Amino acid sequence: MLKINVYAVGTIKEKFYRDAINEYLKRLSRFAKVEIIETPESKIQNGSIEAILNEEANHILKKIKPGEYVILVDLHGKEYSSEDFSEYIKRHLDSGTSPISFIIGGTLGLGNELRNIAKDKICLSKMTFTHQMTRVILLEQIYRGFKIINNESYHH
Amino acid sequence: MLKINVYAVGTIKEKFYRDAINEYLKRLSRFAKVEIIETPESKIQNGSIEAILNEEANHILKKIKPGEYVILVDLHGKEYSSEDFSEYIKRHLDSGTSPISFIIGGTLGLGNELRNIAKDKICLSKMTFTHQMTRVILLEQIYRGFKIINNESYHH
Repeated sequence: MLKINVYAVGTIKEKFYRDAINEYLKRLSRFAKVEIIETPESKIQNGSIEAILNEEANHILKKIKPGEYVILVDLHGKEYSSEDFSEYIKRHLDSGTSPISFIIGGTLGLGNELRNIAKDKICLSKMTFTHQMTRVILLEQIYRGFKIINNESYHH
Repeated sequence: MLKINVYAVGTIKEKFYRDAINEYLKRLSRFAKVEIIETPESKIQNGSIEAILNEEANHILKKIKPGEYVILVDLHGKEYSSEDFSEYIKRHLDSGTSPISFIIGGTLGLGNELRNIAKDKICLSKMTFTHQMTRVILLEQIYRGFKIINNESYHH
């Protein structure tokens, strides 16, 4: 079973987003072993954005193990249709690449250190979403991807 | 105050999506008069997709009044960054166009009758989202748009 890590900066305060995330994790459990790894937001109060992003990136970098296939969720990444994204997941399934590890930045975005280690960058929308919403959308699209791969109908 | 209608096919079953929608409606209430108008899903069981979309479109068309500026939320529409989308809303604010009326299709999409009356088509993502999620994202982006217009910080 494909192992998928989702590294995400910060916690989810809104109950409705936590519930949505848990719902998709539950639905995904028959397709993949998905784990969300939350890392701390920077506590720097008056530092530069760069310093904050650097600290948040380091928290993630410490957790990533050699062999993980790192994919940034990035406004400047490549846009996929849901069908193409399912193909993208299928390529990893077929090649036996595991784990694949998505990284979702915090409220300020992603540090450059993360850009350097990422194999791919994917963009969910040209619009900026909240990091909470990004987590929900990513999980839903992975779930949708597996439904497409398995030729299951999905009208929701 | 700008009046914004959101026509949407079908109801939202998941409590977490309803809660998310209500949260953004609450936040939006100081910027605009936003109303969600839910129209029924087609009850056709064995008809063509075209017949279903046609019926769902007619439910919406019956509700729309002359003078509404109709905007389709459509996978094949124009993609905006959040900044450009806030500019788009601002143009309506400045010109006094009101109401502006977004239409979100149901699980099968949008009928052609709606394409014919729409002034604009906007695309939230190249990915296909659930119609529930589309409703949340649209409201969040309208809210984000007003925050940008009003130069208010927004880190969520």
